[in-house]
Amino acid sequence: MFSEKNAAAGVTFPRGFQAAGVKAGIKKSGNLDLALIYTEKTANVAGVFTQNAVAAAPVIVSREVVRTGTAHAIVANAGCANACTGEVGLANARKMAALAAAELGCEAGDVLVGSTGIIGVNLPMDKLAAGIKAAAAELSEDGSKNAGNAIITTDTYSKACSFAVEMGGKSVRFGAIAKGSGMIQPNMATMLCYITTDANISSSLMQKALSEIAEVSFNMISVDGDMSTNDTVLVLANGASGMAEIKAGSPEYAQFYAALKEICQEMSKRIAADGEGATKFLTINVSGTRTFEDAKTIAMSIAKSPLVKTAFFGQDPNWGRVICAVGYAGVPMVPEKTVIRFGGIPVYANGLGADFDLNEIQKVMEEHDIVVDVEMGMGDASATVWSCDFSYEYVKINGEYHT
Amino acid sequence: MFSEKNAAAGVTFPRGFQAAGVKAGIKKSGNLDLALIYTEKTANVAGVFTQNAVAAAPVIVSREVVRTGTAHAIVANAGCANACTGEVGLANARKMAALAAAELGCEAGDVLVGSTGIIGVNLPMDKLAAGIKAAAAELSEDGSKNAGNAIITTDTYSKACSFAVEMGGKSVRFGAIAKGSGMIQPNMATMLCYITTDANISSSLMQKALSEIAEVSFNMISVDGDMSTNDTVLVLANGASGMAEIKAGSPEYAQFYAALKEICQEMSKRIAADGEGATKFLTINVSGTRTFEDAKTIAMSIAKSPLVKTAFFGQDPNWGRVICAVGYAGVPMVPEKTVIRFGGIPVYANGLGADFDLNEIQKVMEEHDIVVDVEMGMGDASATVWSCDFSYEYVKINGEYHT
Repeated sequence: MFSEKNAAAGVTFPRGFQAAGVKAGIKKSGNLDLALIYTEKTANVAGVFTQNAVAAAPVIVSREVVRTGTAHAIVANAGCANACTGEVGLANARKMAALAAAELGCEAGDVLVGSTGIIGVNLPMDKLAAGIKAAAAELSEDGSKNAGNAIITTDTYSKACSFAVEMGGKSVRFGAIAKGSGMIQPNMATMLCYITTDANISSSLMQKALSEIAEVSFNMISVDGDMSTNDTVLVLANGASGMAEIKAGSPEYAQFYAALKEICQEMSKRIAADGEGATKFLTINVSGTRTFEDAKTIAMSIAKSPLVKTAFFGQDPNWGRVICAVGYAGVPMVPEKTVIRFGGIPVYANGLGADFDLNEIQKVMEEHDIVVDVEMGMGDASATVWSCDFSYEYVKINGEYHT
Repeated sequence: MFSEKNAAAGVTFPRGFQAAGVKAGIKKSGNLDLALIYTEKTANVAGVFTQNAVAAAPVIVSREVVRTGTAHAIVANAGCANACTGEVGLANARKMAALAAAELGCEAGDVLVGSTGIIGVNLPMDKLAAGIKAAAAELSEDGSKNAGNAIITTDTYSKACSFAVEMGGKSVRFGAIAKGSGMIQPNMATMLCYITTDANISSSLMQKALSEIAEVSFNMISVDGDMSTNDTVLVLANGASGMAEIKAGSPEYAQFYAALKEICQEMSKRIAADGEGATKFLTINVSGTRTFEDAKTIAMSIAKSPLVKTAFFGQDPNWGRVICAVGYAGVPMVPEKTVIRFGGIPVYANGLGADFDLNEIQKVMEEHDIVVDVEMGMGDASATVWSCDFSYEYVKINGEYHT
């Protein structure tokens, strides 16, 4: 379906988008920590945000911008989450947008903001101001890589992808950068994902698509069961491909939807695979339930179980912990109807451990990518959750990441 | 209130109870693994069990015995959970009761059974039979310590307590042994707790008390959020104190209720404090909610957050992770009304980090026992959850405990 994939191009692959990432001195490490994404042509915008009742200041400000339907830029920093910072934090988030707007020659209300890092600390506004000035000066069509690196925290690598789709007689481009790592959980986490496209679509139709797709992508990953105060996914569509506007129910909408879903699921999988300290990438497919919600609840129960996660870290085919997590998920189930497979090999069926070949299953457990299939035999619905294991490194990262 | 506490005496402190613990060869380590508790005088019985839909065979059998209202014995093993073992497992659990009954001269229907350990493996019935014979021969009033050691798995120590209460003109005795450690979570976990008393109370009244008390004791502890297939709490009351029968609504019932609550909460705290790999014992008090359920939901959200748990392991006063866990608990809250204290010192208030003394808070974080108070300012209800931190050792224990 996709004619081209180009991870390096990221958010600047779609026409009319520029980006930059600079060192503003907010991260203690001295690494890149200030990202700017800009489109001169006005973009329609859609967004989904954390459902945590304690929403960070940048989330409050970005929600307001999304409500207007259009934007020209995203400015984001790592190293400081600007969360639990009260009125000062909210004023700083608005100032951050205004500073970027002044450099870019647009309105503050055209600038989306993002922050990730430590909670409860105020943004160093002088450093931020200098960083925004420097980033604006460096904006370019090669800037996505730096922008991607400027938003990561404990991620081991920057997540990016881009591709083009033939749509309405035009080659329409999509690109994304994302950061994830800790606190990744249903309804998202300290997760930022910025998606750009030169498709031509209204903000309301794009919002509908994004809200639906988030349910089967970003809301289906779990690293540690925590949900952050700062999670944000934004899509900017500037129409620079020259295509006619995408209408609801059209073949072009179906293509746009498929492309956005592809990019959201791809970024979700990479975020889960790069969970803090992860040594395994787990795909948990639950099928045969009465509803999607039932399947998701069971898959999340497995994905969030520390006992399951440590078993995969130990490369132990411990199906007992998986059936146990199925059993306490709170969804009606019949142990005798349930079948569990690791890497396609049945390990539990008919209420009992299956008679599997220990060498074969050990090979599955030694892989980096492991698929867990759970068939419930209760209906026709299904759901897939992406997760990772729990390692010594997770404890180290989170025990030593001091306030 | 309690005239005597004597941990060593445990389940044999109440009159008329004997116990034993022997090495049946079920644990690979060769340690004690078969426990027997016996009262010649018929005991009224009450029990609460795992709510996991995948209940182990011994849970099924013990539920049947509890339904009859009376029992003479408990036989329990460690090293094999007899869970996910199908018809063979159920037959083995019944056989286990019958073997003990034959040695003790009672009916199989008078014997409660318990198993803890690896899931999906059948009980070694020859070893079990020999162990039961040996345990029956060793039954004594000094046997509680061995019985307690025979039911532990990854616990670092056996949990036991006992005390006497003046009640209805008699000194009425209570005793308990318990095991916990991994998979400790609301609605219990791989947790066995056996309580004996020489009080005189009907099984129905005792069941009412136990069911209520479990909600504020065993269901309020969380080690890792998992819930096992085998959790069981049993109370045997043989009336040997010579007191008149305790009637509903009487002062003696209030005394009995208080004593049972004390023993259940005490054992719950010890189980939480000895969570797998734990270096900290956390008491999480949530107050000022509209309902007990709201308070419990928030306290459990904090207790189960791996980010909170690793922060306490790292002795980091990371209140940001605590307010974050409060925010995603799903209970209505107002960040500005919420106050968080660590060891009595305010760390978050008015939507912001409080201005605390870093040296003072560091002293709190270095303690083994840490109290976290969260005031929500939304109502008059409250709840307390007991939990522990998440350490390297947790990952090690659970990554290496192979099937």
